[in-house]
Amino acid sequence: MVSVLDLIRSGSAQTKPELVRQSQLARNVVTDRVERLQGLGLIRDGDLQNSTGGRAPRSLELVRDAGLVYAAELGATLLEVGVANLSGELLASKEMPIDMKDGPVRTLETVYRELTKLGAEMAPSVWGMGIGLPGPVEWESGKPYAPPIMPGWDGFDVRGFFTERLGCPVWVDNDVNMMAVGELRAGVAQGHANAVYVKVGTGIGSGIVSRGKLHRGAQGAAGDIGHISVAPDSTELCRCGNHGCLEAVAGGAYLVGALGEALTNPEATQLAEICATDGRTVDAIVRAARFGDAVAIRLLTDSARIVGGVLAQLVNLLNPSMIVIGGRVGRSLDRYLATLRQAILRRSLPLATRSLEVVVSPLGDEAGLVGAAFTAVDQLLSEEGIARLMQKQALVGAG
Amino acid sequence: MVSVLDLIRSGSAQTKPELVRQSQLARNVVTDRVERLQGLGLIRDGDLQNSTGGRAPRSLELVRDAGLVYAAELGATLLEVGVANLSGELLASKEMPIDMKDGPVRTLETVYRELTKLGAEMAPSVWGMGIGLPGPVEWESGKPYAPPIMPGWDGFDVRGFFTERLGCPVWVDNDVNMMAVGELRAGVAQGHANAVYVKVGTGIGSGIVSRGKLHRGAQGAAGDIGHISVAPDSTELCRCGNHGCLEAVAGGAYLVGALGEALTNPEATQLAEICATDGRTVDAIVRAARFGDAVAIRLLTDSARIVGGVLAQLVNLLNPSMIVIGGRVGRSLDRYLATLRQAILRRSLPLATRSLEVVVSPLGDEAGLVGAAFTAVDQLLSEEGIARLMQKQALVGAG
Repeated sequence: MVSVLDLIRSGSAQTKPELVRQSQLARNVVTDRVERLQGLGLIRDGDLQNSTGGRAPRSLELVRDAGLVYAAELGATLLEVGVANLSGELLASKEMPIDMKDGPVRTLETVYRELTKLGAEMAPSVWGMGIGLPGPVEWESGKPYAPPIMPGWDGFDVRGFFTERLGCPVWVDNDVNMMAVGELRAGVAQGHANAVYVKVGTGIGSGIVSRGKLHRGAQGAAGDIGHISVAPDSTELCRCGNHGCLEAVAGGAYLVGALGEALTNPEATQLAEICATDGRTVDAIVRAARFGDAVAIRLLTDSARIVGGVLAQLVNLLNPSMIVIGGRVGRSLDRYLATLRQAILRRSLPLATRSLEVVVSPLGDEAGLVGAAFTAVDQLLSEEGIARLMQKQALVGAG
Repeated sequence: MVSVLDLIRSGSAQTKPELVRQSQLARNVVTDRVERLQGLGLIRDGDLQNSTGGRAPRSLELVRDAGLVYAAELGATLLEVGVANLSGELLASKEMPIDMKDGPVRTLETVYRELTKLGAEMAPSVWGMGIGLPGPVEWESGKPYAPPIMPGWDGFDVRGFFTERLGCPVWVDNDVNMMAVGELRAGVAQGHANAVYVKVGTGIGSGIVSRGKLHRGAQGAAGDIGHISVAPDSTELCRCGNHGCLEAVAGGAYLVGALGEALTNPEATQLAEICATDGRTVDAIVRAARFGDAVAIRLLTDSARIVGGVLAQLVNLLNPSMIVIGGRVGRSLDRYLATLRQAILRRSLPLATRSLEVVVSPLGDEAGLVGAAFTAVDQLLSEEGIARLMQKQALVGAG
């Protein structure tokens, strides 16, 4: 059953008669819930609607500026922070370099400082926060768990750090899960009950959507495709300690490592030029490929073929209706996407690919921040979230 | 939100006060729903409970014999049929050889005949049916889709065949999905929100549980691990037309095919003896391995190592809290399970395996039939199912 507030938020129902019809709840129950939500200041009367006979019903709408949520998305070297309203719309955002190797306290103090600066001049109070981290996160506890690129972060109480300072609920998740939520709630995957977001950047990860919600698994570790073994005999050591992981032979860090040999190829003229001025980076490879450098293109399409092979398995396993490709490598070239698509179709079963769409993430670099905002909003406005708000209101009323 | 009937069926709530507390619905709504369910003959008053002050509340219970469901599970060469009550308990069942190559009409007429024979002497009417097929099934339409081992079945209207004859709703799914539902609802995976059932028999397949429900994907094709590529350079041709599929190098059919070479090994004494009397079958290999035949054991543990490698990927991807192993190869030996476990642990990430259980299916050969019964019962007693029953009752009352 869908909640009354979900129907209003999604725009599926705007008036009480519509709410009764779509929620399948009794009329008096809908009236009761609407009054409670009005009491919490979460919904208000909007415009008069056309009458279908009797008194014209009023539309109901979410009071999107009743509260704020903080959002943060942390990459290995980049921080994005934002402040959003209860519709998940970013009202302000900012990005700046960080270094996860500084450890949790210094890094999270930066996050906190930047968020409070952004939110300082906004009127309503902060109701919740969502934060994405570049490593495995145990969803229940909000703590990173043995994260390979975050030295000093293992088991650090990220949730506690912020609840203590903000006095509101905080949800911590893996960065790629946040990106998946961003595309699901505000991007190209809206309305897809079965979808997968795949980030091919320095590392490789995915976020899985099942029945319209993120599939986190038992501990919150689901979606980790970067460490699937694709080349068991490979000598490429992965940051996880194994050999031949997908990430170790097709991710951005591997491509940068492969530049040493690639640059000895006399065909790599643009690539050599760009690397000489800009340094050896993923962006240099992408730029050279866009200029038509054959060696750079081959580096990228080789990656696409390997990633596509794993995505074919994922299609057989999960039968999504959409795969959204993000990350700087994934979004590099039309040919990257075309090569991925070919590899997926070659190894997947016909029923699973009958209406499969493989598209590039339109939200791009913002997907994670948008997803962090929606993660907080969706939890705050869930049935459990509303019950929590009512309890809080009752305490304030009594106190 | 959990429905009132679900709370009663699961035993979570037995009295109206308990239902109010656990459903978070208003008192009058619970009363209204209970009356409707009583009107449908689905629940009845049970024993008086202890009073906690006022009038002693009566317990409410499902009328499990209000209706019957038919269940059928079809393998390549074996048919199981059963009749169950609304608690999903099998009241009668039967198995017999079939040959899917006879095509849909002849095979399904056998299924229909055997079911009506079994159900003939039972009093209540048949409310619904669940049927599992050994190939991909499009869940929405109830039709097989390009099934590799079911010649003549592609697109056949299996649901229509039975609704026409029985006049009740029918749900068709892949056989391994049915087994997963069986273990989830009545077997070892009860209470696991994230689980995977893996069948290693002649073929290899899986059923995925996400948030306590089967993950079917966009078309119903999810769970197909048998055609994941594990040996791209292999010359073993799979029945799907590709090379190097998991099933083609580790399934029962492959093991039987490998007997030719295995039997030339002078160490294969028991294996040779058993094959000479019983023929070259999976069961012969399993039996020889249980007698300690080193060659048979190696055939099976090689399969376990390859299957385990794929399950490690599945653990990284889905982070289940339990993997249930079924099928004649999967359930063959303790060493099969031990080898699987080792292979999973070697390649999975620490967070995903922290509390992972890998167990053998306790329901065994009956898992699919039990799952087919529960698939029908759960759909019949879902909110949509109850709405359908009420509509039907209203029509009967008006007519």
